[in-house]
Amino acid sequence: MKVRLDCPLPKLDFDMITLGHGSGGLLTNKLLDSGVFNLFDNKILHERHDGAVINTSGKTAFTTDSFVVSPIFFPGGNIGDLAINGTINDIAMCGGIPEYISVGFILEEGLMMEEFWDILVTMKYAAENANVQIVTGDTKVVEKGKGDKIFINTTGIGPIHPDASISAGNIEVGDKIIVNGELARHGVAIMSVREGLEFETEIISDTAPLDEPVRGLLDEFGRAIHLLRDPTRGGVATVLAEIAKSCKIGVEIFEKELPINEEVGGACELLGLDPLYVANEGLFVGFVKAEVSEQALDKLRTFETCKNARIIGEVVESHFGQVVLHSKIGGKRVVNMLPGEQLPRIC
Amino acid sequence: MKVRLDCPLPKLDFDMITLGHGSGGLLTNKLLDSGVFNLFDNKILHERHDGAVINTSGKTAFTTDSFVVSPIFFPGGNIGDLAINGTINDIAMCGGIPEYISVGFILEEGLMMEEFWDILVTMKYAAENANVQIVTGDTKVVEKGKGDKIFINTTGIGPIHPDASISAGNIEVGDKIIVNGELARHGVAIMSVREGLEFETEIISDTAPLDEPVRGLLDEFGRAIHLLRDPTRGGVATVLAEIAKSCKIGVEIFEKELPINEEVGGACELLGLDPLYVANEGLFVGFVKAEVSEQALDKLRTFETCKNARIIGEVVESHFGQVVLHSKIGGKRVVNMLPGEQLPRIC
Repeated sequence: MKVRLDCPLPKLDFDMITLGHGSGGLLTNKLLDSGVFNLFDNKILHERHDGAVINTSGKTAFTTDSFVVSPIFFPGGNIGDLAINGTINDIAMCGGIPEYISVGFILEEGLMMEEFWDILVTMKYAAENANVQIVTGDTKVVEKGKGDKIFINTTGIGPIHPDASISAGNIEVGDKIIVNGELARHGVAIMSVREGLEFETEIISDTAPLDEPVRGLLDEFGRAIHLLRDPTRGGVATVLAEIAKSCKIGVEIFEKELPINEEVGGACELLGLDPLYVANEGLFVGFVKAEVSEQALDKLRTFETCKNARIIGEVVESHFGQVVLHSKIGGKRVVNMLPGEQLPRIC
Repeated sequence: MKVRLDCPLPKLDFDMITLGHGSGGLLTNKLLDSGVFNLFDNKILHERHDGAVINTSGKTAFTTDSFVVSPIFFPGGNIGDLAINGTINDIAMCGGIPEYISVGFILEEGLMMEEFWDILVTMKYAAENANVQIVTGDTKVVEKGKGDKIFINTTGIGPIHPDASISAGNIEVGDKIIVNGELARHGVAIMSVREGLEFETEIISDTAPLDEPVRGLLDEFGRAIHLLRDPTRGGVATVLAEIAKSCKIGVEIFEKELPINEEVGGACELLGLDPLYVANEGLFVGFVKAEVSEQALDKLRTFETCKNARIIGEVVESHFGQVVLHSKIGGKRVVNMLPGEQLPRIC
């Protein structure tokens, strides 16, 4: 792994995780002192108390996610940056500025220390990249066969942007629906590994932090950004269907406007997947006041992860509670939530 | 289960968890709407966003724990109240007043909905009991054989008590070491189930929230409470050994002062366990300024969960970095951290 160049695996007298590393005793301390503490080091973590003491003030976003993705390494990332970016993005979707993250590991006995180390280093860089501090954590170990290598919970907090007013209640007829980039890349990247598929160009996950583009939007357009959601499990379709249903609004989207990479689209056809339902990890859907939607799009496109931002639909004054897709060939169909399970353990 | 009387399992068209319940789609929504949301209901959770927006101000405790206890039901509790109380206690150990909790479930396909419901109801009551709100959550499902029924992560936040100054750096020579109750009950309760042991009186876990007694201490003695730690995995011995080592202080404890229930002591002998190393879930160890230690003890004993509070030792000006136990028969021995694994998956 490239990340290992700057942070080589420390010399250890063990090469895999054993139950003792979850004992809370000497071996747990040994594991933490082996380099984990140094890797994430900051003043708050350094206290090594049961919890962290941080400074907060006012309205604060608070969000949690557990990650069980399989395989734990995939094109474009691993479970480590997926977990850090995922929680950063959930905070950003609330209009928050990610600041502190807690990390809970559930390790399966036998996990190779090399793999764990690569994940830890990736987490370090993902956190630094978004300027968040990992301030507290917990490690449990379960017996072989009672887990699957590694599960990670990340919980984050951060102050709400002063100009943010993100709430489904703010959505109004005429709002434009924006996505910041191409659909379905994460799900297809995972599936390509699971199914052993090879494409001309490797399809890589879109896992990325969304805090910067969201902050950019809120700085400039504040309350005109009505709602933000990241379409992870269940994809864009499920998120839109949920919003339409819970807010009793009508949503129209246009198939020809959906930004889908040609190879990703091809892979979806091959795998029998509808890209509208495939999981994303660096994507958000925004409901934006119509008057500023074009400027918001221009602003978004100044960010590396949002070059392919596009308006894909709008809120209309009909078919309340439903999402209607206008297909490329001129047809219309209702878009519902993902009915069953499409890709288990995608995140 | 008694708890089910007030909150009966809702009528559902499924009786066990399937992979689809973790899809993020229709089945996930169905699971949440089946009663989970109503059970935990509060204004913040009701927003059903990716995260919660809460109000905070000033110094705040932030702490995380994952729970993998096996079996998930045991005498005195289940993984649900263990998880809520555990995080409440970690916040209290920082001198914080628990306010908000996030919950992350990792469910194994095939978990019976009845069991899940009992756990959820227990969590509801544990949270209400300590006046904390469950404001955000996440549910993932893994395939049969890739988890073990249910793992729960709870992460909590709450403001630091205005008079608290909890830090290992505050410990001074002469400090008295207090425990609020009997040692080793949680570990022995779990082991008795695993080993199929029966005692004259059932030994039940000490799982309990510690926020009230801690608040009582801080209200009255503020900065004279130097350090608080809950001796879960690794027990009282490991916590004291860690503190002695990291603060380079000398600690003496007296075996005859350790509050150990007779049956728990007998069970430990039978199982070959040293109660000093056995996990607790409703216990804390406090380093308290000598001058107020007797009053602190009196104050503690006014709380139901602290009737057996006792001074078990003190900080001395010798053998820096080490814990020395004075045995009942007049001997002395050094107390080290738990070397290996004693009871895997105790919490």
